[in-house]
Amino acid sequence: MLSASHRLHTETLSAEENQAAYGKCNNPHGHGHNYVIEVLVGGDVDAETGMVVNLAVLDEVLRRNVLDRFDRTNLSVDPLFVNRVPTTENLCKTVFGLMQDALPVGKLEYVRVEETENNFFEYGGE
Amino acid sequence: MLSASHRLHTETLSAEENQAAYGKCNNPHGHGHNYVIEVLVGGDVDAETGMVVNLAVLDEVLRRNVLDRFDRTNLSVDPLFVNRVPTTENLCKTVFGLMQDALPVGKLEYVRVEETENNFFEYGGE
Amino acid sequence: MLSASHRLHTETLSAEENQAAYGKCNNPHGHGHNYVIEVLVGGDVDAETGMVVNLAVLDEVLRRNVLDRFDRTNLSVDPLFVNRVPTTENLCKTVFGLMQDALPVGKLEYVRVEETENNFFEYGGE
Amino acid sequence: MLSASHRLHTETLSAEENQAAYGKCNNPHGHGHNYVIEVLVGGDVDAETGMVVNLAVLDEVLRRNVLDRFDRTNLSVDPLFVNRVPTTENLCKTVFGLMQDALPVGKLEYVRVEETENNFFEYGGE
Amino acid sequence: MLSASHRLHTETLSAEENQAAYGKCNNPHGHGHNYVIEVLVGGDVDAETGMVVNLAVLDEVLRRNVLDRFDRTNLSVDPLFVNRVPTTENLCKTVFGLMQDALPVGKLEYVRVEETENNFFEYGGE
Amino acid sequence: MLSASHRLHTETLSAEENQAAYGKCNNPHGHGHNYVIEVLVGGDVDAETGMVVNLAVLDEVLRRNVLDRFDRTNLSVDPLFVNRVPTTENLCKTVFGLMQDALPVGKLEYVRVEETENNFFEYGGE
Repeated sequence: MLSASHRLHTETLSAEENQAAYGKCNNPHGHGHNYVIEVLVGGDVDAETGMVVNLAVLDEVLRRNVLDRFDRTNLSVDPLFVNRVPTTENLCKTVFGLMQDALPVGKLEYVRVEETENNFFEYGGE
Repeated sequence: MLSASHRLHTETLSAEENQAAYGKCNNPHGHGHNYVIEVLVGGDVDAETGMVVNLAVLDEVLRRNVLDRFDRTNLSVDPLFVNRVPTTENLCKTVFGLMQDALPVGKLEYVRVEETENNFFEYGGE
Repeated sequence: MLSASHRLHTETLSAEENQAAYGKCNNPHGHGHNYVIEVLVGGDVDAETGMVVNLAVLDEVLRRNVLDRFDRTNLSVDPLFVNRVPTTENLCKTVFGLMQDALPVGKLEYVRVEETENNFFEYGGE
Repeated sequence: MLSASHRLHTETLSAEENQAAYGKCNNPHGHGHNYVIEVLVGGDVDAETGMVVNLAVLDEVLRRNVLDRFDRTNLSVDPLFVNRVPTTENLCKTVFGLMQDALPVGKLEYVRVEETENNFFEYGGE
Repeated sequence: MLSASHRLHTETLSAEENQAAYGKCNNPHGHGHNYVIEVLVGGDVDAETGMVVNLAVLDEVLRRNVLDRFDRTNLSVDPLFVNRVPTTENLCKTVFGLMQDALPVGKLEYVRVEETENNFFEYGGE
Repeated sequence: MLSASHRLHTETLSAEENQAAYGKCNNPHGHGHNYVIEVLVGGDVDAETGMVVNLAVLDEVLRRNVLDRFDRTNLSVDPLFVNRVPTTENLCKTVFGLMQDALPVGKLEYVRVEETENNFFEYGGE
């Protein structure tokens, strides 16, 4: 789980258009969420270890590349979100890219991010 | 549910002491949570309506006095958190006070706030 | 868990007053819920068995006295809800009474009933 | 979430066959559930807004076409369930059809309906 | 849900290699989990009954072939896990095989097993 | 969360009595659970830090005194459960005692342990 804040706002829209698109999420002081991140890695079960990927390794890859970077931060100030609105759709694609680059074994099937208990976003690559 | 951001920082402690007390939660750009708020109201069940308090009324009281004020905001800029760290302990006491003042019927037993799925805070008055 | 339907309506109020008190829950065809029931039994831990009450026994008492009676039924036609609105407040008190009469050992601390994921009712006796 | 009641019964089967097929769910007075509905919409993330579909719009489409129609009702009396058993399988297909007709943007990937915490149904079109 | 214990250990690795691969899960006395099992069966909705597969039947098939065999047991002593590490990956494939052989109607789409609230495994056949 | 195994069996009862009292939980090979532990600490909110107890400290106390001792183990071989059945009732009292001895600040209100999603045990001291 990742606790972070963001402000939904894009320079390419006027103040009124930002308000229409993002509503209260355009609040200039930002607001936050507990993002729940789910990662699915596919592959064959190794006959000797009985695993596709060692979960301790997968947790470590996620911690180093995603949680250490974003947990308890304001997403809007991260270099990856300069000129790119930190919607959860974009966060989901970003996490997919970071994990795909770092995964030592297996195929990244999808990344799913829950922003609240009432919505989620899923990305499985192009 | 309430989505908001906060920064845990107090002027009465030095930068090092703030870091020691709040760790990553002292991040100057803030971070955020989905706070889950639970309110318990006690009283007799009305013989005619079969209710202690009409839940539509209770929801409206919570919406007007708590959610409209804090949802999608940065708690640190609210007047109630000037010179008062917006920890979830303090948020919980604040919600209790706001609800107690506004409740039209029944006795406010407690307010419980979950900051993440791994912790919660509960306040039942003095 | 208990899946049942009810209609919130009382003969002592007019059609308009019923609508004002219960809103959509006054729908003449009824509607339903998955009620989640939680029962807490207090007492000393038996030194030999390491239990307060055998859960297999507690489950059986709940099944016989509550679930078999109400699951997959319309609460409004049960004799216990003649001239008594089947609100979840009243259901909660009813379950408390049925369980207290049937419990072979220990003290019934409270019964808690969740009507939806967004509300719950709790009764601990007079 | 949708709170509704239904009775599982079909005119094409005898009373005994209905009982065998649906068990307690064939109760003539009906019973009810809190149906949890999950909708997944696919498409490209818009470069300007960072969204596939504005969730406020999606929520409104779901509210108008599904929740306003079925919440706090008895499914068995809805015209869509005349001569069609209101199983959750059929409810799921119905919600898919209503949402697909009303969705202003994106592709409806699937509709998933949880009847209780122990079962769910999923439909992704033909 | 299935409550069982296991020890992650393979004879083909040395004691040090077992410790490196499985960490605390290599504890010689074993440890346990509440495995949550999700089964998805695909097929056409029957026009008469409104069902793909009768859930009472599906529950019975799962109970007889999976739960009765593994619930409240030590997986490591089951014949299916002789010379095969009882990881949840392997348990998931085993449940898929047992269910596929026993399913009277429909197509087994996948079996998903949650080992803890923080991980899950999914298998959909070759 | 704590993943551990146990066997419910007491030397003071015969084999038949053990089977009657504990059913499948008397399986000689043991079985296991994911125990979810909830700890509530009471006290005044510190005016400077806005906390009752620093959660990082509380987590560390729980980790050192409870999780490091019991996670991924077989409870039945722990010295605290020699001649004492490792029911979840007894585990709950044990965790309460270990936490009360180690807590640096505040009052331990209760310890609650969920054995499965369908039951829990709570202990608040004598």
